[in-house]
Amino acid sequence: MALVVVGGVAAGLSAAARARRIDPRLEITVLEQGPVISYGACGLPYFVEGRVREARELVVHTPEYFRKDRNIEVRTGARVVSISHPRREVVLADGRRVRYERLVISTGARPDSAGIAGADQPHVFRLHTIEDAERMRAFLRERRPRRAVVIGAGYIGVEMADALRRNGLRVTVLERGPNALLRDDGETTLAVRRQLERHGVELRTEVEVRAIEPDRVADVPCDMVVLAAGFKPNTELAAEAGVEVGRSGAIRTSDRMETNLHGVYAAGDCAEVTHLVTGRPVSFPLGTTANKTGRVAGANAAGGRERFPGVVGTSIVGIFGMAFATTGLSVEQARAESFSPVAARIEGLSKPRYFEGRKTTVELVADRNTRRLLGGSVIGEEGAAGRINVVATALHARMCVDDFEQLDLSYSPPFAPVWDPLLIAARQLAKML
Amino acid sequence: MALVVVGGVAAGLSAAARARRIDPRLEITVLEQGPVISYGACGLPYFVEGRVREARELVVHTPEYFRKDRNIEVRTGARVVSISHPRREVVLADGRRVRYERLVISTGARPDSAGIAGADQPHVFRLHTIEDAERMRAFLRERRPRRAVVIGAGYIGVEMADALRRNGLRVTVLERGPNALLRDDGETTLAVRRQLERHGVELRTEVEVRAIEPDRVADVPCDMVVLAAGFKPNTELAAEAGVEVGRSGAIRTSDRMETNLHGVYAAGDCAEVTHLVTGRPVSFPLGTTANKTGRVAGANAAGGRERFPGVVGTSIVGIFGMAFATTGLSVEQARAESFSPVAARIEGLSKPRYFEGRKTTVELVADRNTRRLLGGSVIGEEGAAGRINVVATALHARMCVDDFEQLDLSYSPPFAPVWDPLLIAARQLAKML
Repeated sequence: MALVVVGGVAAGLSAAARARRIDPRLEITVLEQGPVISYGACGLPYFVEGRVREARELVVHTPEYFRKDRNIEVRTGARVVSISHPRREVVLADGRRVRYERLVISTGARPDSAGIAGADQPHVFRLHTIEDAERMRAFLRERRPRRAVVIGAGYIGVEMADALRRNGLRVTVLERGPNALLRDDGETTLAVRRQLERHGVELRTEVEVRAIEPDRVADVPCDMVVLAAGFKPNTELAAEAGVEVGRSGAIRTSDRMETNLHGVYAAGDCAEVTHLVTGRPVSFPLGTTANKTGRVAGANAAGGRERFPGVVGTSIVGIFGMAFATTGLSVEQARAESFSPVAARIEGLSKPRYFEGRKTTVELVADRNTRRLLGGSVIGEEGAAGRINVVATALHARMCVDDFEQLDLSYSPPFAPVWDPLLIAARQLAKML
Repeated sequence: MALVVVGGVAAGLSAAARARRIDPRLEITVLEQGPVISYGACGLPYFVEGRVREARELVVHTPEYFRKDRNIEVRTGARVVSISHPRREVVLADGRRVRYERLVISTGARPDSAGIAGADQPHVFRLHTIEDAERMRAFLRERRPRRAVVIGAGYIGVEMADALRRNGLRVTVLERGPNALLRDDGETTLAVRRQLERHGVELRTEVEVRAIEPDRVADVPCDMVVLAAGFKPNTELAAEAGVEVGRSGAIRTSDRMETNLHGVYAAGDCAEVTHLVTGRPVSFPLGTTANKTGRVAGANAAGGRERFPGVVGTSIVGIFGMAFATTGLSVEQARAESFSPVAARIEGLSKPRYFEGRKTTVELVADRNTRRLLGGSVIGEEGAAGRINVVATALHARMCVDDFEQLDLSYSPPFAPVWDPLLIAARQLAKML
């Protein structure tokens, strides 16, 4: 039996590797249009920053590794231009055809140009592939730009603002919407704004950019632009082959990561997943989800029987050493989903003062009718990742705030205060409900 | 109505404060036998070490604060010698009597001398009260001891070994049982031993100490001894009054923290709590649990209706900068509780290498029949507290390993690797079941 995987980054290679484990005799071919496979795209901002010295530090495995160690054929520079499902074959740009019995579509997503004119000038960058990052590094080194505009205050936008500022540039971030970090959450946006400003980066929200001029964007003069206005799932190839695309804009999948076409799976940034808080399909392109959905797609494509239940929407981003972590729904998002959200926001310490505990802001959101936790955010220089993961775990378990309040969390002075900020927030929230 | 609270540290004062919130007119009296109330006992090792400079940094509130701000009468030096429940009064050492309608017993626990002879010599210390710690500090300063023996490799034992070593002493820890950290877990003990040895502290297990000589313990020469052989709940006062004591040695309580005597509550180190993994009552003396059970006891004593569901047995201790965190049951403990435990132990990184990720060891234990998670441990210099809290949250939710494997944990290079060590361990464990 032949499995073809379209796309050789996180989801595609997870699928191929998992399929190989399930069926040692499966014929597996991975087709990647770019020159490099298996890289950690989330590390790209740190390569631009300079913390990661060489692009190859971000490459996990080479095609040779997959060929020799996993018996998986990986072809780079292999761009699939169409899928003919009735004939069970994919057609490459060079006209060659590859037959499949099972297909995994992991075509990823691409930076959204958001209809902005002038986005193809040499001083305008996206951050999606290793080549993008290398081009940006070369530009920084050779042209020594002094002022940058970052379009978009999502994760990559703020990470790039941080990376460029650390390279000595003046940076302005322009965001179309009212909020940062793709979350309808004014308090978090305010905290992001303050942290950016504290480090000399300006954030302007509700600025609609229509065109990039050679020397400015909107009224901000600059000699470098980073376009980070979000991603669009690459679904065209799939859609033309009859694969159904959901309302989120990504490919519809079952919890086995199968599309509407039998034997055709989708995984990674191009595929929908279920949001476990709302129960609805969403497009939530993240590296971890790509790896997980890839594994499930690969397992099922190889004859296994696994399911991917979904995500709770956990994210974290570091801005000049401060973590902004969110999971589940914000108050506004919960309201839009017809919950009756109530939120408690508290400030605590990550550890006791005598262990130099840092300020930690926790917000928890619950539904007034059911007392079920709906989401939360944790902002702080220390321990935010661990704390948001506790909230994420509680969301997976559909925990109510009263149970959350009683969690037996670890305590010892070098690690946490006796009342963890999470529990203080839960206590506060329980009182308000 | 009159509420009397016996004991003015964590549980007692939490009870009093919570009762006051529920009923502003309640007459509340806290009787503390010692001279100081409301101190963070868990901070005492750091006071001995010198990181905490003044004992008063560990004191959260004074009797004056409670009197003025909370309208709670707190008497120090007030030792209760008996409780007459039929008369609803407690008798103090000075013969005075205090009447109650509701009583909270929060008498704590005391260091167990474990039948060791010579435990009252001036060079022998316990670490339980602020006075104990001050006495030890004075001894270190004035006598300049050079070799210490710590009896007991529980939490306080290893914390004291760390604190004394940092003060320049040669330290040997003698433990009666085969394992450290009160957990039947050979791998964790091995890791503790290695970490202690790396910092010049010797750990000897299965050494039964019968006597402390003036210049040695067993065959280890020393001029200072710390007795940290565990705690005994202070239940005598309660038992004499007819309060039932459980098989764990602590006071039996309902999930409302009420004892068998109506209107008499128990909380903190002297009270049993339910272990949520086994469903059985245990004595698990920890500061967090004392605060939580105190709150519930206080609320119910004041006419509220709250419950304390129980603990999952989460602990964390730092030894020379490395965290040893455990929750739930170890394999051996699970076997003793008639589960069919299977464990996976993996080594991962706390973050990507280019963010200087540190080695992180995760063990997860699940039941072969139900696939339910039973416990885990996390050892590492970074992120262990957050990770053990995720496992603890999953234990509260009675999660199975397959659901745990799919947790949507936060990922971004400054904070975690794309596959969190927790998920790698879960994946491994799911395969083994």
